[in-house]
Amino acid sequence: MAPVRGVLPPVVTPFVNEELDLPAFENNLRALNRTGLSGYVVLGSTGESVYLDEHEKELVLAAAREAAAPGKQLVMGTGQESTRAAIHLTRLAAKHGADFVLVVTPAYFKGQMTPEALMTHFTRVADDSPIPVLLYNVPQFTALNLAPEVVAQLAQHPNIQGIKDSTGDIAQLTEIIRLVPRDFAVLVGSDTVFYPALCVGATGGVLATPNVIPDMLVELFRLFLEGDHRAALGLQRRINPLANLVIREYGIGGLKLAMDMTGFQGGGVRSPLIIPHGARGRLSAELAKLRPDIHPQPEQPTLPMDPGDE
Amino acid sequence: MAPVRGVLPPVVTPFVNEELDLPAFENNLRALNRTGLSGYVVLGSTGESVYLDEHEKELVLAAAREAAAPGKQLVMGTGQESTRAAIHLTRLAAKHGADFVLVVTPAYFKGQMTPEALMTHFTRVADDSPIPVLLYNVPQFTALNLAPEVVAQLAQHPNIQGIKDSTGDIAQLTEIIRLVPRDFAVLVGSDTVFYPALCVGATGGVLATPNVIPDMLVELFRLFLEGDHRAALGLQRRINPLANLVIREYGIGGLKLAMDMTGFQGGGVRSPLIIPHGARGRLSAELAKLRPDIHPQPEQPTLPMDPGDE
Amino acid sequence: MAPVRGVLPPVVTPFVNEELDLPAFENNLRALNRTGLSGYVVLGSTGESVYLDEHEKELVLAAAREAAAPGKQLVMGTGQESTRAAIHLTRLAAKHGADFVLVVTPAYFKGQMTPEALMTHFTRVADDSPIPVLLYNVPQFTALNLAPEVVAQLAQHPNIQGIKDSTGDIAQLTEIIRLVPRDFAVLVGSDTVFYPALCVGATGGVLATPNVIPDMLVELFRLFLEGDHRAALGLQRRINPLANLVIREYGIGGLKLAMDMTGFQGGGVRSPLIIPHGARGRLSAELAKLRPDIHPQPEQPTLPMDPGDE
Amino acid sequence: MAPVRGVLPPVVTPFVNEELDLPAFENNLRALNRTGLSGYVVLGSTGESVYLDEHEKELVLAAAREAAAPGKQLVMGTGQESTRAAIHLTRLAAKHGADFVLVVTPAYFKGQMTPEALMTHFTRVADDSPIPVLLYNVPQFTALNLAPEVVAQLAQHPNIQGIKDSTGDIAQLTEIIRLVPRDFAVLVGSDTVFYPALCVGATGGVLATPNVIPDMLVELFRLFLEGDHRAALGLQRRINPLANLVIREYGIGGLKLAMDMTGFQGGGVRSPLIIPHGARGRLSAELAKLRPDIHPQPEQPTLPMDPGDE
Repeated sequence: MAPVRGVLPPVVTPFVNEELDLPAFENNLRALNRTGLSGYVVLGSTGESVYLDEHEKELVLAAAREAAAPGKQLVMGTGQESTRAAIHLTRLAAKHGADFVLVVTPAYFKGQMTPEALMTHFTRVADDSPIPVLLYNVPQFTALNLAPEVVAQLAQHPNIQGIKDSTGDIAQLTEIIRLVPRDFAVLVGSDTVFYPALCVGATGGVLATPNVIPDMLVELFRLFLEGDHRAALGLQRRINPLANLVIREYGIGGLKLAMDMTGFQGGGVRSPLIIPHGARGRLSAELAKLRPDIHPQPEQPTLPMDPGDE
Repeated sequence: MAPVRGVLPPVVTPFVNEELDLPAFENNLRALNRTGLSGYVVLGSTGESVYLDEHEKELVLAAAREAAAPGKQLVMGTGQESTRAAIHLTRLAAKHGADFVLVVTPAYFKGQMTPEALMTHFTRVADDSPIPVLLYNVPQFTALNLAPEVVAQLAQHPNIQGIKDSTGDIAQLTEIIRLVPRDFAVLVGSDTVFYPALCVGATGGVLATPNVIPDMLVELFRLFLEGDHRAALGLQRRINPLANLVIREYGIGGLKLAMDMTGFQGGGVRSPLIIPHGARGRLSAELAKLRPDIHPQPEQPTLPMDPGDE
Repeated sequence: MAPVRGVLPPVVTPFVNEELDLPAFENNLRALNRTGLSGYVVLGSTGESVYLDEHEKELVLAAAREAAAPGKQLVMGTGQESTRAAIHLTRLAAKHGADFVLVVTPAYFKGQMTPEALMTHFTRVADDSPIPVLLYNVPQFTALNLAPEVVAQLAQHPNIQGIKDSTGDIAQLTEIIRLVPRDFAVLVGSDTVFYPALCVGATGGVLATPNVIPDMLVELFRLFLEGDHRAALGLQRRINPLANLVIREYGIGGLKLAMDMTGFQGGGVRSPLIIPHGARGRLSAELAKLRPDIHPQPEQPTLPMDPGDE
Repeated sequence: MAPVRGVLPPVVTPFVNEELDLPAFENNLRALNRTGLSGYVVLGSTGESVYLDEHEKELVLAAAREAAAPGKQLVMGTGQESTRAAIHLTRLAAKHGADFVLVVTPAYFKGQMTPEALMTHFTRVADDSPIPVLLYNVPQFTALNLAPEVVAQLAQHPNIQGIKDSTGDIAQLTEIIRLVPRDFAVLVGSDTVFYPALCVGATGGVLATPNVIPDMLVELFRLFLEGDHRAALGLQRRINPLANLVIREYGIGGLKLAMDMTGFQGGGVRSPLIIPHGARGRLSAELAKLRPDIHPQPEQPTLPMDPGDE
């Protein structure tokens, strides 16, 4: 399998009345197949994987394998708190045809997650995984950072082939890239720093906004490869206000709303997530600046208790 | 069911080679049955519940119901990231005879866990739970605080009957107690502030050290009830050095080692937790100050990769 | 000089149009002289000492010495970022008749303030100080904690006779008290945990609310000494809502407003502090619950740009 | 005065036995005059300005004006906690010939430093300053962030002409640049992200390592202007290990040691700063990789209590 590079969105998991909406999920992938995205991350944070049970995860993965066009790389999130559960889910991902697994740092017992404990966890998962492993560092959710020195050691493992770092910390990303082998994939997981991450040597991005505006992120990546820094930066600046809304401010509920506005099927969220009040107006205003087919909408009251009706 | 008060340890889940060791689990409870503990919290953080699958949780709960003496209250940790999973596990707990469920704040998507989202989550769980619900606030693991104002609102729900607050923040505990109804159980979850928590009105403690020195904590509670503040404080001070070791410094691996040294069966931990290097010497030294039957031990090398052999 | 114990407010520094209002300052002290307060902390954080130049500090200290009744202990804040400046101001305090100096942790270069650096700083100040030194730990302002182990080492210095710990962390306070000599003064600097701090062995409190309701805090201390825990806790609970407003929410501007409402002379603040909008209504409502002579007031617009006019 | 761009080091203030060593200070500037640096920041954080009294600041500024070559821009740090003190020092800077003042956020009363309070503070300083003002945001020291929205508002003031942002947060830097006028100088204050900061539109850097290796940073800036991204990134990667040592790990004491090793005169630090133990060996090893004239040195014991002897 070729190393991971380019743009891969962590795709959302649509719900209707909190139940899986697999047709909507497949429709989204089919629409995205027509873009220049390199692949998809399924069951990542944005896929609300912490809200799915094992059976649901199998259904989602099978649907992803079915719907993804040939050549699109399929990355499946399989991190779990215990090493054994992470291994179990990793094997399941391989069985269902994933190309890579993305393994988040276990983090519940933060104080005990020493470099040694993390080394052991990831090494055991990588030893037992039939497919290559990508590390996943996302302190905004785990409240634990995976230090560059630990990443560098883990990068020596033949079955650990990359990292998604969502800190948005470009100094840390630069340090990771300095310390790992040349063919180790370093993917940035923060939309607002995609362009500067590429500047310091990232090989791609696992980014949320391509769920809504895939062509713009693909274009940014292409411009960078062609050395057109000015245009790449220009695109980055245009994207950032939307990225701030759907990532920091409104979260997955906002991202799903934005998808519904742009011809994708975001659908409802699973509780305790909510579709944010007052998001529709601001999201449509930002989207209207990026896509000529979108018009600003007045805000409508949303029903947080029944997001499936959205 | 009478309100929760007094001392309840969150009991550990012993493992051998990372597999459940239910006989050891039951032996621990039978030994604790002979003390003045009010009951047990099963499948809490200290029970490594984030590392157990649903079937294992059922086994542990059934074993707890079997081994716990009549009159000991049985609290089961059933918090999950999604509301529906928390409800599912809560019903399972009721089916297996738990007296209360302890529901931790969902926290993966921290930025989205607004007061409204948390209110909805806990209200739905409480609505659907056949047995009373205790809230569980533990920011050292969740990196999210449950504010006193939210607790106060939730305390109006007839099926939410208490909280375990593990922040160690006595000002927050005082504020919670000021805002909730008189019969709402407020349990402190931080051993080192058990006595001052009782001073400001806590009804009891869910504490780790009673897994090792149950009589001392029961005695502290009794002294407080009798108004012997001086002796209660004296006990608190004696307990604190051990509490700091098994909670903050060494974590569950250290607690299990200490149990092994004191006639209980701590057993191994599940990976990525490790039995901490160098813990045996310091733990035995502190234990020797508290229990005349314990003698300080020289440190022995531990095998972190195979903790089941401990 | 007897050890510090009991209740000491860090007194405010009143301004008119941002200029020192020494008559108001002296009036406040004379009013407080009639209470059971043990003394005064002058030029502490609440005294806006970071906003005063050296000459102003001398004026304030001289005024304090003049206005304070005999027997009231006078503590002067003299902490500075550099060791030499802290020593200089400490000597000045002694010259002007201070009984103790209160020396805050230097904290600008947080990463470099190792235990060794802090030990050296405080030791050199204590070596050169003609009067006893109290340590001052206030992470909410310094973003740096003075660890109990460092306090314990410093407590061995014959001229370091106590600490004001404003963390509100009762576990830390308990640990400090466990580690220091019996005659080392441990003063809590957080109003909302005054009673539990006394329970774990604090010798007194340096507290903001006695600037407004001195008798209530003195009474709380007296009740504690007499062993009337129930009444002491009752007072603590009554005081907390006001304490939360004037410390956490509105800060010094709110405290000064509350003083103006209760017959003291808070006066204006120095910029960049502001008299908070909307504070008058809530402050008067809380004060009315504590003092029968106060009536709730409607909110009036304040002029933040010219606080001296208040 | 032309806008600030390019590379400006915050120059150190050398001490001998904790006393100002102005000849060493001037020698450093004269050596730096021969490089392509745009100018100097005097009395910034790295200049230990929090440890200098007003008279010393005047001496340093006069020496800087004297020693700086024509055409080198002179920026003086004049931030103070109170607005009035910041204005006073700002006027002094103008009197002594500074071209710009750099005004750090007041931050002692963090909770009260609302956008309104900060707006007022900086506006009043800018109103009264005879020379242009640069904002200074350095949360690693102030524990307070100056939000892009506040920067954007302040950038409307005709006398506020730029910002030094030392967060290292490239997303924030990108957002600031997006919101401010085109001629507003945005200087990054974190060496390890100089190149990516330039990529997103920063106009220059106020950086510590040019105190030691000025030519490398000037070269990096030139390469960027010429569009040679590959070479610029290569230089950034080479510089980072040294930057991490002298900024994060060893601080100013380490920077001064490195200066002493490279022909500059770092001199001693002022207490409570210390010359770090064990720094010499690692610093010389990193320097040897960057400058052929430097050879790795064995570590020698340092005397932290008398850093002036270094």
